Amino acid sequence: MKTLTGLVLLALALAPLGAIADEGMWTFDNVPKDKVEQKYGFRPDDRWLEHVRLSSARLAQGCSASFISESGLVMTNHHCAHQCIEQLSTPTRDLVKGGFYAKSQGDEVKCPDLEVNQLVQTSDVTARMRNATDGFEGEKYNQAQRAEIARIERECQTSDRLRCEVVTLYHGGIYHLYEYRRFQDVRLVFAPEVAIAMFGGDPDNFEFPRYDLDVSFLRVYEDGKPARMEHWFRWSAAGAKENDLTFVTGNPGGTSRQLTAAELEYARDVQLPDTIFHLSELRGELVEFRRRGLEQARHSSTELLYVENGLKARKGRLLALQDPEFFASKVAAERDLKARLAKDPAKSQRTLPAYLAIAKAQKDLKKIRKQLDYEERKLGFGGKLFAHGRTLVRAAEERPKPNEKRLKEFRDSALPALTQGLFSQAPIHDDLELLRLTFSLTKMREALGTDDPFVKKVLGKASPAEVAERLVRNTKLKDVAYRRQLWDGGKAAVEAAVREDAVIELAARLDPDARAIRKQFEDGIESVVKRNSELIAKARFEVEGTSTYPDATFTPRLSYGAVKGYQQDWKWVKPFTTIQGAFERETGRDPFALPGSWHAAKGRLDLATPFNFVTTNDIIGGNSGSPVVNKDAEIVGLAFDGNIHSLGGDYGFDESVNRAIAVHSAALIEALAKVYGADRIAREIRPQTRQGSAVGR
Amino acid sequence: MKTLTGLVLLALALAPLGAIADEGMWTFDNVPKDKVEQKYGFRPDDRWLEHVRLSSARLAQGCSASFISESGLVMTNHHCAHQCIEQLSTPTRDLVKGGFYAKSQGDEVKCPDLEVNQLVQTSDVTARMRNATDGFEGEKYNQAQRAEIARIERECQTSDRLRCEVVTLYHGGIYHLYEYRRFQDVRLVFAPEVAIAMFGGDPDNFEFPRYDLDVSFLRVYEDGKPARMEHWFRWSAAGAKENDLTFVTGNPGGTSRQLTAAELEYARDVQLPDTIFHLSELRGELVEFRRRGLEQARHSSTELLYVENGLKARKGRLLALQDPEFFASKVAAERDLKARLAKDPAKSQRTLPAYLAIAKAQKDLKKIRKQLDYEERKLGFGGKLFAHGRTLVRAAEERPKPNEKRLKEFRDSALPALTQGLFSQAPIHDDLELLRLTFSLTKMREALGTDDPFVKKVLGKASPAEVAERLVRNTKLKDVAYRRQLWDGGKAAVEAAVREDAVIELAARLDPDARAIRKQFEDGIESVVKRNSELIAKARFEVEGTSTYPDATFTPRLSYGAVKGYQQDWKWVKPFTTIQGAFERETGRDPFALPGSWHAAKGRLDLATPFNFVTTNDIIGGNSGSPVVNKDAEIVGLAFDGNIHSLGGDYGFDESVNRAIAVHSAALIEALAKVYGADRIAREIRPQTRQGSAVGR
Repeated sequence: MKTLTGLVLLALALAPLGAIADEGMWTFDNVPKDKVEQKYGFRPDDRWLEHVRLSSARLAQGCSASFISESGLVMTNHHCAHQCIEQLSTPTRDLVKGGFYAKSQGDEVKCPDLEVNQLVQTSDVTARMRNATDGFEGEKYNQAQRAEIARIERECQTSDRLRCEVVTLYHGGIYHLYEYRRFQDVRLVFAPEVAIAMFGGDPDNFEFPRYDLDVSFLRVYEDGKPARMEHWFRWSAAGAKENDLTFVTGNPGGTSRQLTAAELEYARDVQLPDTIFHLSELRGELVEFRRRGLEQARHSSTELLYVENGLKARKGRLLALQDPEFFASKVAAERDLKARLAKDPAKSQRTLPAYLAIAKAQKDLKKIRKQLDYEERKLGFGGKLFAHGRTLVRAAEERPKPNEKRLKEFRDSALPALTQGLFSQAPIHDDLELLRLTFSLTKMREALGTDDPFVKKVLGKASPAEVAERLVRNTKLKDVAYRRQLWDGGKAAVEAAVREDAVIELAARLDPDARAIRKQFEDGIESVVKRNSELIAKARFEVEGTSTYPDATFTPRLSYGAVKGYQQDWKWVKPFTTIQGAFERETGRDPFALPGSWHAAKGRLDLATPFNFVTTNDIIGGNSGSPVVNKDAEIVGLAFDGNIHSLGGDYGFDESVNRAIAVHSAALIEALAKVYGADRIAREIRPQTRQGSAVGR
Repeated sequence: MKTLTGLVLLALALAPLGAIADEGMWTFDNVPKDKVEQKYGFRPDDRWLEHVRLSSARLAQGCSASFISESGLVMTNHHCAHQCIEQLSTPTRDLVKGGFYAKSQGDEVKCPDLEVNQLVQTSDVTARMRNATDGFEGEKYNQAQRAEIARIERECQTSDRLRCEVVTLYHGGIYHLYEYRRFQDVRLVFAPEVAIAMFGGDPDNFEFPRYDLDVSFLRVYEDGKPARMEHWFRWSAAGAKENDLTFVTGNPGGTSRQLTAAELEYARDVQLPDTIFHLSELRGELVEFRRRGLEQARHSSTELLYVENGLKARKGRLLALQDPEFFASKVAAERDLKARLAKDPAKSQRTLPAYLAIAKAQKDLKKIRKQLDYEERKLGFGGKLFAHGRTLVRAAEERPKPNEKRLKEFRDSALPALTQGLFSQAPIHDDLELLRLTFSLTKMREALGTDDPFVKKVLGKASPAEVAERLVRNTKLKDVAYRRQLWDGGKAAVEAAVREDAVIELAARLDPDARAIRKQFEDGIESVVKRNSELIAKARFEVEGTSTYPDATFTPRLSYGAVKGYQQDWKWVKPFTTIQGAFERETGRDPFALPGSWHAAKGRLDLATPFNFVTTNDIIGGNSGSPVVNKDAEIVGLAFDGNIHSLGGDYGFDESVNRAIAVHSAALIEALAKVYGADRIAREIRPQTRQGSAVGR
């Protein structure tokens, strides 16, 4: 399990940092064929690569997927389709808990919000981009760049069935135009019970060994009929074996492998520990809060999932940065790049000051970070009410401005996401709001100090609990209609609300301070880091070109690796688990309770079937739902997570411990056929006789 | 506020790391007179030093104090006498809450457990110690050393009124025999309300600005009469002013300034963060637990105080280690020492492998630390019941063994502390035990993994909450009489209990595993670190001699410094607060509520009186209650805490931010006279005419 919104934290792959590691999230036009051939004796040629790319899919909401039949069958993770499964549930039929299977094609149900993309064409638009921005700097440069991107995408976008995107690769080293075929009619075909999809819950999240059937099947339709696919992945008869070469094709969401040592130090010593301290305490309060009663347990469960997932993800990243060898390798890489740049004094003179500027920005950030976190970002005001209040206060001020002058969350492009949250029908619970607000106000006083002017402005002579109580009791923001009224009513409505609504009053009163610290950050720190990071990235691209891969951008990438165990502390972790293992491990208590369907099927199952496995593929959040394929481009697994070390993949790839975790292809078939009686699907993805477009080898 | 048991975390002093910093907890025979004179124009001569030493006191329980009148009046912190104040309370008279003042000498009440020590004589016993251990190694060396120490102390100990201790300085560079005059009749004279002693509670703990009257007055008696003192501190008429030279004389409990870079890295990257994560979550659970009701809030308050104090202390230490300049200075110091050692190849050959061995031990520790923490140390089994169970199971096995073969907590010297805890009458509350056990078992599963054999042994198929419930419901260990019965009954009683008591059963069943991991740690890691640290310490002492100061050992030390503000993030913190500030800051809500006595006295008080102040003195836990004196050996303040940066004083001294926090002498007089009407005491410590032994200058 990763994040629930979709941009999901998976992870990666193996081998000590060095020349031979299976490192890289490669664009399809720049796969290191020689390296793969040299290490694994197989050379992916252009035809193979095209087939694999066209058989791969992206969920626009933030996951990966694959086409696995001629008739548009799509495979992804359960947690990637979680929102749809929840939306299709009814008060009497909980599909998250009970699972879903469309016995016939007619039973397949449309997912309201899902969109599937297939990358059909890419082209280089670097020259156009360079021409358009040539001679500009700063804000003008940004405007010219945005305008040219819009022009290129508009020219490309000739139909609703296309999605055109200009992608910035190598931090601006090159620009590509990506054209996706767009499937907007996506239907749910099959999902197992969440108890087996996320068997092990938080204790097992980002861990291995693992026993999860984190799968769902969807189908893309066109004109009301299953779409006909020219390319799709066949199913491997044998499945993955130890040391087999594996490819993962998917859309890694984002990596930060180009951070400078100063930024990594800041993340390691300040940002990650502090966030973990905060989330740890909050987790403690939530866990105990849930003991107040069943109702509290129910309505805080999503909150707790977010907190626990965020906590574990950050602990994993911290673990990587705290590894002395890993950190030293990052420092060494920076030193090496500087040495290479030094060969060209002009280049060196442009770039070395950029490193210093970024380092200074980290120092400056250290000084204001608590204010920023507690006054402007959300650490100081937990829960939903204050967030809505601030949004409405600012909306009244921002929306009348010209688009480019607004705070970025109020720009036209961001408004759909903003209003989706603001007008969400999800209920707001007083007791949970009280807990969240009391907690965050207490932490604010702790972080900024009792005598801080901002803290005094918030608390006055009252305690954090008293202020929280006053806010929650004296606001109408729980009411969606009231929020909409303030949104539509603009400045006049908000000014009136200041006199009657405690949350609006506080948000309005604090806004000048909060905006001031944000401005200090954006002008004095963020922009410095951005400008100087670009300078370094350009210099790096001039030196390295496409001999390496670009940071992840939630666009299609290929990674290569192999099925391999790893050493964790003093234990060797074997690369496979079996279905038998799940039964041995189950306790009957959440989160280690297998669903009834599995108990009923136990006698029929081949318990020696491999269940989950790990590979050295270099993947990360966004890769959830990626197919794992062999050299014959056959499905051998379905990636759904990474181990705890994989989280360091945000910063760099450590092949010795980083692992992607996948469901084994054999377990998928075994479960479909013997647990769920989903023979229709099992036959569709693994027909006895092969048909359709061959791989070409 | 620091720890409640007495060994209290204070802290230190100022100036960038370097030659001129006010660094050092100097033994009285080795005060750097030249340095003090050079920097502050005052040279403490031998007569001055003797007077200061004899006017200083140690509370045997773990604090510092001073003699402040001819008639044995003693000043220390409120939190140092907290236990006595609590013990003297009755159900109808809560002295912690209401304070205490003995209107006449006859009203002074004996503290059951307090002992005051005055260091009257020191002598060098290094030669005797070397002779006794010459030619021995390993366990034999330890035995010979222990035997010689016992001999020296026995010979010295000619009366009950003496306490003789052999003190190991410079990690074995020299050995001194310390003779203390011992006062066992100690009576409580005055204590304010805890609300003003600890005004600001946890939010202000280890912070400045501060407004605490953390004081209590005691009196030492001999033969039923106030003891006559030859030496005591006079009271300064002027009190401390900015930039004044200040001395703090007290008993710093322990420092780790000689840790190697590898050990510091382990503390920074593993030990401190992990402990803070754990305590943060526990704190969250406790805070929310207290909302269950008044009864829960009451009976978990001490637990929460411990957790919060421990958390803040560790955060402070981590802050120091995460400061890049501070850490670099420690690394540089190690490099410098190695370079100096390298001039003597023989010395270098002995010592350099010691660094490598310690670094390797940290790596080894990383591999087993989770097992050690959760199986043997207390992270896995929170609360009191399991701790008692394990103690009883082990006592049955250990006590029949010869003293030197027992686990160290069962050696004769440790038994008083052990039995005090085991037979404590403090009630054990089911709900709090359930919370603590459920929490720690959940963390154990998280840390070791669901599939860990030890975890399986503990949980079986049950959830952490179920196991906790089973243990708490099926034990009689809450009953002190039952614990005593098992202690007295030895092996037979414990074996019988295994069949009827769930906690004893579990503790007995897990004991082989827990002992095994402990043995692995003690034999393979702890002993390696100890042996090699001694090698390095000896080499260092050969190079540096007494040009520097030894790590703290809870024995009398002198530190020098000055009253100075400091830079915290972007703010300059001024060195003084005033009584006015306390009234401005008060909110009427705990922990910012001033006692009624202060409100009643407000009109009489000179609100401009300095209340608390900070100095650059290098102090640490154990220094609580230390007098702050000027060059005329007059009281100008009472040290009671250090700022958050001072916690790094465990590892090294950073004069730019580390500060000791003290109550100003003027505030003490102002409060005694005008809030508490304690004229008897005010007159005793600040007579209009000076009398008694002069300082000699």
